[in-house]
Amino acid sequence: MQGSATDSDITDKRLLRGARTRQLALARAVHIASLESLEGLSFGRIATDIGLSKAGLQTLFRTKGSLQLATIDHARAMFADFVVRPTAAEPRGLPRFRALIERWIAYAEQPLFDGGCFQSANLAQYDSRPGEVRDKLAAYQTEWVATLSEELSIAIAQGEIEELDPELAAFQIDAVLRSGNTALRLGDATVIAKIRRVIEAVLHSPGS
Amino acid sequence: MQGSATDSDITDKRLLRGARTRQLALARAVHIASLESLEGLSFGRIATDIGLSKAGLQTLFRTKGSLQLATIDHARAMFADFVVRPTAAEPRGLPRFRALIERWIAYAEQPLFDGGCFQSANLAQYDSRPGEVRDKLAAYQTEWVATLSEELSIAIAQGEIEELDPELAAFQIDAVLRSGNTALRLGDATVIAKIRRVIEAVLHSPGS
Repeated sequence: MQGSATDSDITDKRLLRGARTRQLALARAVHIASLESLEGLSFGRIATDIGLSKAGLQTLFRTKGSLQLATIDHARAMFADFVVRPTAAEPRGLPRFRALIERWIAYAEQPLFDGGCFQSANLAQYDSRPGEVRDKLAAYQTEWVATLSEELSIAIAQGEIEELDPELAAFQIDAVLRSGNTALRLGDATVIAKIRRVIEAVLHSPGS
Repeated sequence: MQGSATDSDITDKRLLRGARTRQLALARAVHIASLESLEGLSFGRIATDIGLSKAGLQTLFRTKGSLQLATIDHARAMFADFVVRPTAAEPRGLPRFRALIERWIAYAEQPLFDGGCFQSANLAQYDSRPGEVRDKLAAYQTEWVATLSEELSIAIAQGEIEELDPELAAFQIDAVLRSGNTALRLGDATVIAKIRRVIEAVLHSPGS
């Protein structure tokens, strides 16, 4: 076999190249979509940005719709890696809840995506437009709020915080995080302290 | 003068027709921009929707940028008429604060704009894009949060609610209202009860 490529070698290389191009394209797409929403994505623009052919990208993703859905999944995986995964070492309940909040603040402050929170930028843009894009964004939104709510439930069960409605508290905290992301984008860095104060108030407010 | 139009009559009529066309165009533009953000506006689309010529609209507004700015101002005037103005009869402080919240909920529930809260849809879309559009949206955002904060300050001074940080409370309440708007767009009507519960908790939380 040495020196001569078999058919299956060639197929393997093509698949590998395709997978790499896909990753490159999505790594660029998440930034564009965080800045200008998923509406701002186009094969031509991404191709120019990463120095590849538009036709090649179209072959990989086929439609703009499937490019948008793949971009949401890619952004979600990056969010999970940056915000959720590092908290897995913390004990469940209040410590993990606090770690999630701190990672989220780092995510918005750094920011991980050029346009800040991917979810905030796109959910507001697609919330009135039924379809797969909206459904996927909404599902990830529900999942994130449930993640916060679950740790709060455990914190209550373990007696780490006062009795409160964990779903309501998670809704409220997510709202403040996303609003804080907008304020950060507008240049108001004082909002970080506001986010922390609101969360402490929620955790200490009996029966909210 | 009877039966024959003078030059100034003709000019008056032209101005009047221009002003009417402008109102018609903006009345349509606010709905499009609430659904697809100000990015979704185009002279061609509005012209088709209202049955007028694209060239006529271009003469009136000149650039897409000035159309966007005029659309923000028009949406803001509609918001003021629907949410803020009806509360002017209420006494300052807690009654007016509560009236503002109820009008806001009606604004998101009805909704006044086809895509729900105009500000939420567009602020998320433009928060990372410096320029006049972002500046105008941010200014109106600041003004609205200040309106809530001011009534809370008066409510505290009048002893109607516990001592709290009115700016922080207004930030938090605005966040929950805007997040509630997103939930409503996604079909979750139970969020209205959540909004009311959060607001009661904020008003009764000492020193938040």
